[in-house]
Amino acid sequence: MVMRKMYLFSFCILFPGIIATHNGYAQELLTGYVNPLIGTDKMGHTYPGATVPFGSVQLSPETDTISYEENGHYNKPVYRYCAGYQYADKTIVGFAHTHFSGTGHSDLGDLLVMPTVGKLQWNPGTATHPEWGYRSPYAHTEEQAVPGYYKVRLQRYNILAELTATTRTGMHRYTFPTSDSAHILLDMEYGIYNYPDKNVWSFVRVENDTLVTGYRQTNGWGRTRTVYFAMSFSKPFRGYSWQNNGKKQVYRGFWRKWEQERNFPEMAGPHLKACFDFSVREGEPVMIKMALSPVSTANALENMAAEAPGWDFDKVRHNAQGLWEQELGKAVIDADKDTKTNFYTALYHVYINPTMYMDVNGEYRGLDQNVHRAGKEAGNYTTFSLWDTYRALHPLFNILQPRRNAAMINSMLAHYDQSVHHMLPVWSNSANENWCMIGYHAVSVIADAAVKDVPGVDYSRALNACVATAGNMKYDGLGYYLALGYVPEDKNGASVSKTLEYAYDDWCIAQLAAKVGQTDVATTFEKRAHNYRNVYDKYTGYMRPRLSTGSFKSPFDVLNTDEPGYIEGNAWNYSLYVPHAPDDMIKMMGGSRRFSEHLDSLFTMELPDSFFAHTEDVTREGIIGNYVHGNEPSHHVAYLYNYCGDAWKTQERVRMIMKKMYRPVPDGLGGNDDCGQMSAWYIFSALGFYPVAPGSDRYDIGSPAVSKAVLQLENGKTLTINTVKQSDRNVYVKSVRLNGAVLHRNYITHAELMRGGELVFEMSGKPVKH
Amino acid sequence: MVMRKMYLFSFCILFPGIIATHNGYAQELLTGYVNPLIGTDKMGHTYPGATVPFGSVQLSPETDTISYEENGHYNKPVYRYCAGYQYADKTIVGFAHTHFSGTGHSDLGDLLVMPTVGKLQWNPGTATHPEWGYRSPYAHTEEQAVPGYYKVRLQRYNILAELTATTRTGMHRYTFPTSDSAHILLDMEYGIYNYPDKNVWSFVRVENDTLVTGYRQTNGWGRTRTVYFAMSFSKPFRGYSWQNNGKKQVYRGFWRKWEQERNFPEMAGPHLKACFDFSVREGEPVMIKMALSPVSTANALENMAAEAPGWDFDKVRHNAQGLWEQELGKAVIDADKDTKTNFYTALYHVYINPTMYMDVNGEYRGLDQNVHRAGKEAGNYTTFSLWDTYRALHPLFNILQPRRNAAMINSMLAHYDQSVHHMLPVWSNSANENWCMIGYHAVSVIADAAVKDVPGVDYSRALNACVATAGNMKYDGLGYYLALGYVPEDKNGASVSKTLEYAYDDWCIAQLAAKVGQTDVATTFEKRAHNYRNVYDKYTGYMRPRLSTGSFKSPFDVLNTDEPGYIEGNAWNYSLYVPHAPDDMIKMMGGSRRFSEHLDSLFTMELPDSFFAHTEDVTREGIIGNYVHGNEPSHHVAYLYNYCGDAWKTQERVRMIMKKMYRPVPDGLGGNDDCGQMSAWYIFSALGFYPVAPGSDRYDIGSPAVSKAVLQLENGKTLTINTVKQSDRNVYVKSVRLNGAVLHRNYITHAELMRGGELVFEMSGKPVKH
Repeated sequence: MVMRKMYLFSFCILFPGIIATHNGYAQELLTGYVNPLIGTDKMGHTYPGATVPFGSVQLSPETDTISYEENGHYNKPVYRYCAGYQYADKTIVGFAHTHFSGTGHSDLGDLLVMPTVGKLQWNPGTATHPEWGYRSPYAHTEEQAVPGYYKVRLQRYNILAELTATTRTGMHRYTFPTSDSAHILLDMEYGIYNYPDKNVWSFVRVENDTLVTGYRQTNGWGRTRTVYFAMSFSKPFRGYSWQNNGKKQVYRGFWRKWEQERNFPEMAGPHLKACFDFSVREGEPVMIKMALSPVSTANALENMAAEAPGWDFDKVRHNAQGLWEQELGKAVIDADKDTKTNFYTALYHVYINPTMYMDVNGEYRGLDQNVHRAGKEAGNYTTFSLWDTYRALHPLFNILQPRRNAAMINSMLAHYDQSVHHMLPVWSNSANENWCMIGYHAVSVIADAAVKDVPGVDYSRALNACVATAGNMKYDGLGYYLALGYVPEDKNGASVSKTLEYAYDDWCIAQLAAKVGQTDVATTFEKRAHNYRNVYDKYTGYMRPRLSTGSFKSPFDVLNTDEPGYIEGNAWNYSLYVPHAPDDMIKMMGGSRRFSEHLDSLFTMELPDSFFAHTEDVTREGIIGNYVHGNEPSHHVAYLYNYCGDAWKTQERVRMIMKKMYRPVPDGLGGNDDCGQMSAWYIFSALGFYPVAPGSDRYDIGSPAVSKAVLQLENGKTLTINTVKQSDRNVYVKSVRLNGAVLHRNYITHAELMRGGELVFEMSGKPVKH
Repeated sequence: MVMRKMYLFSFCILFPGIIATHNGYAQELLTGYVNPLIGTDKMGHTYPGATVPFGSVQLSPETDTISYEENGHYNKPVYRYCAGYQYADKTIVGFAHTHFSGTGHSDLGDLLVMPTVGKLQWNPGTATHPEWGYRSPYAHTEEQAVPGYYKVRLQRYNILAELTATTRTGMHRYTFPTSDSAHILLDMEYGIYNYPDKNVWSFVRVENDTLVTGYRQTNGWGRTRTVYFAMSFSKPFRGYSWQNNGKKQVYRGFWRKWEQERNFPEMAGPHLKACFDFSVREGEPVMIKMALSPVSTANALENMAAEAPGWDFDKVRHNAQGLWEQELGKAVIDADKDTKTNFYTALYHVYINPTMYMDVNGEYRGLDQNVHRAGKEAGNYTTFSLWDTYRALHPLFNILQPRRNAAMINSMLAHYDQSVHHMLPVWSNSANENWCMIGYHAVSVIADAAVKDVPGVDYSRALNACVATAGNMKYDGLGYYLALGYVPEDKNGASVSKTLEYAYDDWCIAQLAAKVGQTDVATTFEKRAHNYRNVYDKYTGYMRPRLSTGSFKSPFDVLNTDEPGYIEGNAWNYSLYVPHAPDDMIKMMGGSRRFSEHLDSLFTMELPDSFFAHTEDVTREGIIGNYVHGNEPSHHVAYLYNYCGDAWKTQERVRMIMKKMYRPVPDGLGGNDDCGQMSAWYIFSALGFYPVAPGSDRYDIGSPAVSKAVLQLENGKTLTINTVKQSDRNVYVKSVRLNGAVLHRNYITHAELMRGGELVFEMSGKPVKH
C-alpha cells in the first residue's frame, strides 16, 4: 500500500492530465489492479516484465531452469518457457528484451542482460547449481511487477535489478554492492527455445565506452529474423571481453594483427557473448538503455534518441505507467477487488499484442526482407496469432481500439502485398510467417471491422486480399476443400477443424463482399460457408473426418484429443464450431432441446485421467467437464445456449468459467493467454456480452461480472454499463435496458454500443427462462 | 578475324561516337587486343568471364576440380581457386557472379548458375567424374573470352553458354538442344573456398514464373557479407524444386500445410539450391538476368530495371564492349602485336578493381552494416587491396582516372567514418574489413592524390582520418612502433616489413599534411618516416628484425622467404624498401657503387630449388634471380638504379621484367595480378616511367616498350608519348624531350604529364652512361 501511495504521488506530478480522464475514478490508479504475475505460473505463459501497450520491447526476467548441457547448447522444452519465466523457478538467468505473451510455442528472448559481481562466468549455470554459471537465486518476496516496471533482488550478488520500457527501448537500473569486479553480461547466444542451429549470426560493435550496437539473427519460429539494437550505458565501462561459445570467430587467421580477446571493439559469430566490466560503489546504479529495431542499428539509435533520450529511469517508468493508465482507462469498472484485479490484468494482457514493428522514422522490415515504410502515426504491427485472436481480441479492439485495429489490418494488408504466396497473415512473427495453426482468419478480423464500420481501411482492396488468400489452392488442403467441399483426412490432416474454419472464414468474406457491394463474390463465399455440413455425420451426431472417397473415417473417438481430423480440440468440442450458422447447426444436430442437453453434458461429463496424458495444452485446470476453455475452439460455446432458448444456461456457464478459469493468482489462468485472446474473452464476458461470430454485428448477451463499467469510445461517446443486484449468486439476467428501452432479444449490436449511453442489466438469483 | 569484323560492324552501329575518340586509331577495336584468358593459368588468378570496368558483377565460369566430399561440403584450396577458374581444368561447374581479379586469397563466387539437360542432379560431381553431378567438360577450342563477353560450349549437354554484364547485372544466354527436361540450377551453397560454416544463411523467393529474388549471406574473407539478388528469366519455367544440402529447412514442422518439395515459392536455409525446369527446342535460347545489390532485393530489381531492362543480349554485350573501348581508349598505343595484347590486357585488368559497391539509387551497405548513401555520380567502391594497389594502380588512376580515384578515396573516407576502429581501409571487401596484409597504405593513395592535385577530395578531413589511423595503438604492433621506433619481432610478427611500411606511410602523411598546411603534423610524421633506419643492421647490411631489448634477432637468413620479420618477401628484397628515401637508403647501404652492384646480384644470383618449396606465392616463374616480381615489395626495385647513377640498368631490367613476367598466354603472368597492381606496373613501365614513391610527384624514367602512346587526360589535355628507334634491342634511353626541351634528369613530374603535349624518348641499343 505504501508503494501504491508513492506511485500516486509521483504519478500525479508527472501526469496531471491523465488521471482526470478516468471518469469518476480520479483517485484510483487502474495500474494498481494489474498483476503481471497472473498467468506466469504453469499454463498462462505470460511474462512479468516491463512493457508499454503494444510495445516492441518486452523486457522481462528469464528463469529457464533446464540444465546447460555439456555441449554448450540450451535444451529447453518448446512449451513450458514460451514467456521465458515460470513462477515456480528459483533462479533468474537474466533479463531479455523480447517475449510473446501467452503463446503455446516459443521464440524470442533476445539480448539477455545479466549483472553480476565477482568472477566472470560465461554460461548461465543450472537451476540446481546456479554457482556453475552466472545465474542468481531470487525470491518472490523481493520481486515486484506492475505495468511498465519490474523489480527483483538478485540474491547471489545483492544487486537490485529494475526494468522499465518505452515502445522500442528497454531500460535497466542495476544497483550494485561495492565491487571492483562488477559485470554486465550481454548474452546474444541466449534465446527462448534455442536449438543448436537457431543462432544464425550475431554482430556487435563497441562504438565507445558507453555505446554498443549490433544485431542477433535467428532461425526459429520466425525463420529469417534479425533484431538490431543499440545499447547505451549510463556509466563508462572499464573494459570488456567476449566469447563465441568457445570458438574464435573475430578475424580468424589474423590473431597477430590485433589482440582480440580484450577490448576489441568488433565481434561477430553465431554464439556471441560480451561482458562489460565496472568498478561500483555500494548503492551505485548502473543504467542501460537497449533500443531495438527491425531495420538497422542506425534506426535503433534513432529510436533511443526519440523515446529515451536521458537517464531519468523514474521518468521513463512513470511514462510507461501513464501509457497504461491511458489505455486501461478506456474501460473503467466497479467490482469487487478480485474481479477488478482479473479485469484490469486481462485488459493489460489484451493491450500487449499485437506489437509495434516499426521504427520511429516509419521504417520496418517486411515479409520480403526489404525495408518498407508505414504511416508513422498508424504504425506497422506484428505478432498476429490470428487463429486465437480473431475470436475476441480484435472484436474487442473494434470497440476500445478501432484506430489501432485499422492499423493492424493495414499491417495485414502490407503483409499480403509482401507475401510471395499472396496471402494474408496466418501467424505473423517479426517479418516472418510461421503458418502456425489453421484457417485464414485474417479475413475474419477484416470482415468484422468492415461490418462494424471501422474507418481507415480500404475494404475493397482488403476484399481482393481475402479472396486471393482463400483461393490459394496449394495452401493446407484448400485445393481439396474447393474441389470436394471438405478437406479429406487421407489427403490433409486436421481435416475437420480445417473444413469448419474455412467455412466460417468464407462466411466472413461473404459478409465483407456484401458490405463493399461485391454481390457475386458474396454469393460465391456464402455457398462455401455451408461446407460445415459436409463433415457432419448424422449417424454419430458429430463433425467427423471424411476421406477423399466420400466415406467417413473409422474408427472414430469423439473424446480423444489426438484423434486425427482435429487440432487443439477433440471431435466433441470441434463439432460445435459453426459460429456463423448456429441455428442451422442446432437444427442439424437435432434441434434446440437436444442441443441444449448435449451442451449440458459437455460441461458435466467426467473424463478419465488418461484424457489428460497426451496433450501439453490441455490440463485438468483448463477443463470443465469436457469443455476446454484453455483452447480457443470452445470460446463461443457457452454462448450457444442463447440459440436454443436457454440463455440462463449461458449466463450460468460464463460466470462459472470466469470464476474457474480466471483467478487473481500466478497460476490463475486456465490456459495459455494466447496473445490476449483468453483475456479478451474475459473482458467481453465480464462486461456481459460476447461476439460469437466476428463478422456479424451481434454480441450475445451473457452475464456481467462487474457492477458498473464505463467505456470511453474513440468516437467521443461513452457507454456506461450498469448492473442491478449483480453478485456472485445473482448471475441470471432478468432484463436488459438500453438507454431506458427494454431489449427484447438476447443480443445487442455493435452500432447500439457505439452510440453510447447506458446499458443496464438487472440481475437475479433465479434463472429467467423464456 | 571474322569475329573481330562482326564486332566492328555492330559496334559502329551501336556506338558511333565512341570509336572517333581513339585518336588516329578509328579503325581498330582496342578490346580486340584484350585476352581475358591471360593470367588464368597457374599464378595470375584472373578470371576469363564477363565484367564491365569497375563493375559490381564479375560473371565467370567456375572450374573447381576438387572432389565434392562425401559430407557434401566443398573442400577447395584457398589459393589455387581465388578467381574460380583454372585454365588447365577440364570441366566447368557453372557460372558465378562475383570474383576477385588476381588476389592471393579466396572469397566470393556467389550465385552459381548451371544449365543442364536430362536427369536433375544437385551436386557438382568431380573433375574426374563429372557425371556424378551436374558439371560438364569443355574445351578451350570452344571457348571465347573478350571484354564483357564469355562464351563456351558445355560439351556434356551441348549447351552454348554465353555471358555478358552491366555494372550490376550479369546476363546469361543458354542455347539448348531440344529437351523436355532442361534445367537451370541456382546453387547458393557453392562459393569459392567454401568451408563448412561459411554459408551463414540464404533466402529465395520465387516471385512468379520468371522472377526469383533472395540473398546469400556468408562468413568468409568478408566475415559478415550478404549479396542480394534479383534473377529474371526470359522464358517462364514450368516448375521448380529445391534442396538444402539434404536437410529440410523451409517451415520445418509444418510439412502438412504445404507441399514444400515442388513449386514452393519460398526457401531459406544455409545450403540452398534451386532448380528451374524448362522444355526447350533445339537452338532455343533461355536468357537470365541476375542483378546484384549490397542492400536489398528491392534495390537489385531497381538495378536491373535501370541497367538491363530488356532481353537484347547482344545489345548488353555491345554496351559492355563499348564501355571497355571507352576506358581502354584513354591510353592508345602503337606497338607490336604481343605488346599490344599485353598492354591492353593489363589495362583491362587495371580497370576491373576496385569495384562499384552501390546501387543505382545511391544506397550501399557500410562497414557498420547500416545502409548509407553515396553520390550517385561518384559511387561507392569496395575491393581495396591496398597493400598491393597503392604502389602503381592508384597512381595510374591519378593520370587516367582521377575522378574515379577521388571517388575511391571518398569511399575510403566513408569506410573510416563507419569503422569502429576509426581506421581507413586495409583491405575492404564488400562492407567488411579483412585486414589482409600490413601497413595503412590508404594514406599513400590519399597523399598521392593530394600531392598531384586530384580534385574532389576534402584533404583536410582526409588528413584527420590518416592521423587517426596511424595513431591506433592497438593495431598490428603500432603501439610498439610508436614507443620504440620499430616493431619488435618478439612482440609482433613481420616486424621489419611493418616497420618499413609504416615509415613509408608516415612519410606519405607528412606529404599530405604539408600539402594542406598542417606543418606540425608534417613535422611529426616526417620524423616517424625515418624509422626505417631503426631496423637497418650495419653489420649484415640488411634490414633485420630487432627485439624489444633493442638487439637484432639471431639467427638471420637473408634469403629464406619464411624468415620471421618479413611477409611476402625475404630480407634481401625487403631491405630495399625505403621508397621515400632511396638516397638515404643507398648512403646507409654503402653508397651508389656498392648499392648498384648489390642490385645486380639480386637479379643474377641463382637460388636453390629449396627456396621455392615453402611459399605458395613464390614460384620460379615469378622470380628473376632473387628478384621476386610476383610479390609487390620489389615493384619499385628495378627503378632504384636511377638513384645511383646507373639509369641504364633500370632501363635494361624493366624491359627484361616486362618480357619475362608479362607474356600473352594464359600462364603469362609471373604472379597474382593482385587486383591490378601487377598490370599497373606493366602499364607504367611500358609507357616509360614509374612512381617509385607514391606521395611524391615524381615518376622515374624507365624504358618504354611501346612505339607510341596517346593518353587522353580528364582535364582535356592529350599527352603523346613518342619513341624513336625503340625496339627489343634498343632498350636504352638516349634522351628524353618534353615538348621539345631535353629533360636533364631521369624523372618527370605529374604536373608535367598533366599539362599534356609530347614526350619523346630517343632509344638506343647501347647503354647511355652518365
